[in-house]
Amino acid sequence: MNFPDDTIIALATPSGVGAISVIRISGNKAFELTDKFFAGKEPIASAKSHTIHYGKLTDTSGETIDDILISVFRGPHSYTGEDVIEINSHGNPLIAQKIIALFTSGEARLAEPGEFTRRAFLNNRLDLTQAEAVTEVISSRSEAALRGARNQLDGLLSAKVQELRTNLINTSSLIELELDFAEEDVEFLERPELVARIENIQGEIEALLSTYSFGRVIRDGVNVALVGQPNVGKSSILNYLLKEARAIVSHIPGTTRDVIREEITINGLLFRIFDTAGIRETTDEIELEGVERSRNAVRQADLILFINDTEQPYPTDLYNELLTLTPAGKIIKVLNKVDLKRESFESFDAKISAVTGQGVHELVTLIQRKALGSSNYTEHTAIVTNDRHFESLRRASENLSAALTSIDGKMSGEFISVDLRNAESSLAEIIGVVTTDDILNNIFAKFCIGK
Amino acid sequence: MNFPDDTIIALATPSGVGAISVIRISGNKAFELTDKFFAGKEPIASAKSHTIHYGKLTDTSGETIDDILISVFRGPHSYTGEDVIEINSHGNPLIAQKIIALFTSGEARLAEPGEFTRRAFLNNRLDLTQAEAVTEVISSRSEAALRGARNQLDGLLSAKVQELRTNLINTSSLIELELDFAEEDVEFLERPELVARIENIQGEIEALLSTYSFGRVIRDGVNVALVGQPNVGKSSILNYLLKEARAIVSHIPGTTRDVIREEITINGLLFRIFDTAGIRETTDEIELEGVERSRNAVRQADLILFINDTEQPYPTDLYNELLTLTPAGKIIKVLNKVDLKRESFESFDAKISAVTGQGVHELVTLIQRKALGSSNYTEHTAIVTNDRHFESLRRASENLSAALTSIDGKMSGEFISVDLRNAESSLAEIIGVVTTDDILNNIFAKFCIGK
Repeated sequence: MNFPDDTIIALATPSGVGAISVIRISGNKAFELTDKFFAGKEPIASAKSHTIHYGKLTDTSGETIDDILISVFRGPHSYTGEDVIEINSHGNPLIAQKIIALFTSGEARLAEPGEFTRRAFLNNRLDLTQAEAVTEVISSRSEAALRGARNQLDGLLSAKVQELRTNLINTSSLIELELDFAEEDVEFLERPELVARIENIQGEIEALLSTYSFGRVIRDGVNVALVGQPNVGKSSILNYLLKEARAIVSHIPGTTRDVIREEITINGLLFRIFDTAGIRETTDEIELEGVERSRNAVRQADLILFINDTEQPYPTDLYNELLTLTPAGKIIKVLNKVDLKRESFESFDAKISAVTGQGVHELVTLIQRKALGSSNYTEHTAIVTNDRHFESLRRASENLSAALTSIDGKMSGEFISVDLRNAESSLAEIIGVVTTDDILNNIFAKFCIGK
Repeated sequence: MNFPDDTIIALATPSGVGAISVIRISGNKAFELTDKFFAGKEPIASAKSHTIHYGKLTDTSGETIDDILISVFRGPHSYTGEDVIEINSHGNPLIAQKIIALFTSGEARLAEPGEFTRRAFLNNRLDLTQAEAVTEVISSRSEAALRGARNQLDGLLSAKVQELRTNLINTSSLIELELDFAEEDVEFLERPELVARIENIQGEIEALLSTYSFGRVIRDGVNVALVGQPNVGKSSILNYLLKEARAIVSHIPGTTRDVIREEITINGLLFRIFDTAGIRETTDEIELEGVERSRNAVRQADLILFINDTEQPYPTDLYNELLTLTPAGKIIKVLNKVDLKRESFESFDAKISAVTGQGVHELVTLIQRKALGSSNYTEHTAIVTNDRHFESLRRASENLSAALTSIDGKMSGEFISVDLRNAESSLAEIIGVVTTDDILNNIFAKFCIGK
């Protein structure tokens, strides 16, 4: 890994017109460069950390660019761990441009995406899961996603992984100690005790892995497809769900003629709702593409609302067709128009009327419950929301299985030790104890510039 | 005027996703309220002004909303002159929403547009022209506009107006002193000296008024209409101008079929270019609307490029038609395609080839010169860019004319004094020495929220 020694600058606030813009500068030239262009009561180079200074920023020709406030953060007590300046200017993009041009005409360069946070990681201000959480906190579009990202930023996953790593290191140290005393043939750790320790650690890793489906749902939201024959009331149900939702995140006009997509949040959880037109095979050339799009929506959905009404016979063919696209466990069978007829001729998960609203609240509760699964999640539980973490945990668990197999096969301590060390390094990757430029590039490329 | 005693809050950065958001709170409850929700090393209420504090902001249920930095500004050493807090949070609109909701659930309320700057004015942190300049600085779209707004924010206009006001007050005081000694019939100021003083002040006011056309051009930019017969090369000239421009501000796709609008800046000055399709009367129903739009573009243009080429006879009818829409002084006669034929058969202001580029630079210089007029503007000259200031200055000048007429008519000192006082109060309105809620409402309604 390359430790940076240059000074970077970027706009830290969203681009556009507003009351103020903030421009962030980090690196060992941050103060010196600022003093070249800034005239306040005292030089920034001698200012105390965490203080704010009013003054004028002038360009190289001596013309005032703006009246600004400068916030001073002395490394290591800054976001990046380096010397950091934040310039608070009038919120005109033209002014931000001029300020950035001024500093890059000096010895600063424009920051790459995520470069401030990357430096924070390299300077041990954050571990890698926390650095990854920063961009999740910024881009979360629902309360649930934000809560998950905060959980990670607060270091709950890091702490858990660190604890498991320490256990593993202690355990494998004992095995390695035996190897040093190989000629004496001592066992510092009786084999049954060793097995119990490893199984215990693996159990905790599996518990973390099991939070992933929940973690993914709260992070990315839930795709819900509405499927049913024409006129069963799919659109009315969609409209009712929109009303039931506390907030409509966005109305995304159907990018296709045939699949309408709406985003809503219910109790802080994001739902993406696709109103499919039809999934039955058709020979009509024009309909064909619409059907294919609908089938894709079903394939990608986390939940399917299979909607029927009391007026039409139960469409067994359509249901069977649905089962070729998605497992039965994802399907919620909904009976609509219960206000029109009392008796029902099939077992349904929810019975509603999109006209009177009867049963809709219960349906929403059912959707939520099914989306979140049976999770024991509390604010103080570590959860896995990220592919990379999931993969590393999965590898660690495999390594531990290998260790258990070695013990079972009465293999020598060397083999067991290697498996345990591999498991430990899989965990180390998660929090970034060991990492590579490639891993970092991959992570920080997803960040916005200025963070 | 009502002096506010409540606490206001608003997002101060542009809305949207970014590295950070800044939320601004001002009022006498700013510190107290913040301490209810913020946990840092020390309470904000006892923090020093111009210091920054890291900590967690938690909602009323105790859940962390975000890790934030809080900047503390103690009144009167703040933007508004009141106690001010700026919260620097992760740049997620959802977080900003939650923070604002948290404070407004307490004793803060959402700020109205421009309310922070309005308070700054009421607390004498800025005079009224400077307050007005704040929104101009933020919304300026060209270097020239920004420079004009900065000029005003730096108080050049205020200082000039204040100087003239002081002169007027001194002069009218002498007149009023005479009135106190009316029985003795003394003249503290000989009439010729009085006339000279008033004429001098009026001359300075007229000089300020004369900067307005220049001020308006640098603030709002220059509308340029391209007019000419088909195939004289209007589009090629437009393309050449776009190339010549240092920056294309925006490409606004023609909102009509017939008038294309491009915005460019040349040496920091904004030009809006309309490529009209035709201004001649037509009987074709479909063309009719396009022609009307083109004619409107010409009517509203500050400059018209009347484009001809060496291939076609000079269209006298079209030129005469043009004169029914705009004064001759606004028209620049351009001869295009001079690369094709050497001799010219009419006098033109510019001779160019949009193919070879010959003469285009000279045309651009001519456009600039004509747009800016003969201005002696330097960075240290006060300029008038604002309708309201123009109107008040015009009224002040009229009041002074009335005073001169009174003197000329040997009227009693009372009349002269009233005219001088009226002139003084017209000037006072500009910088807001006297003002009304109506004037303030009108000014600050144009601001963005958060400023």
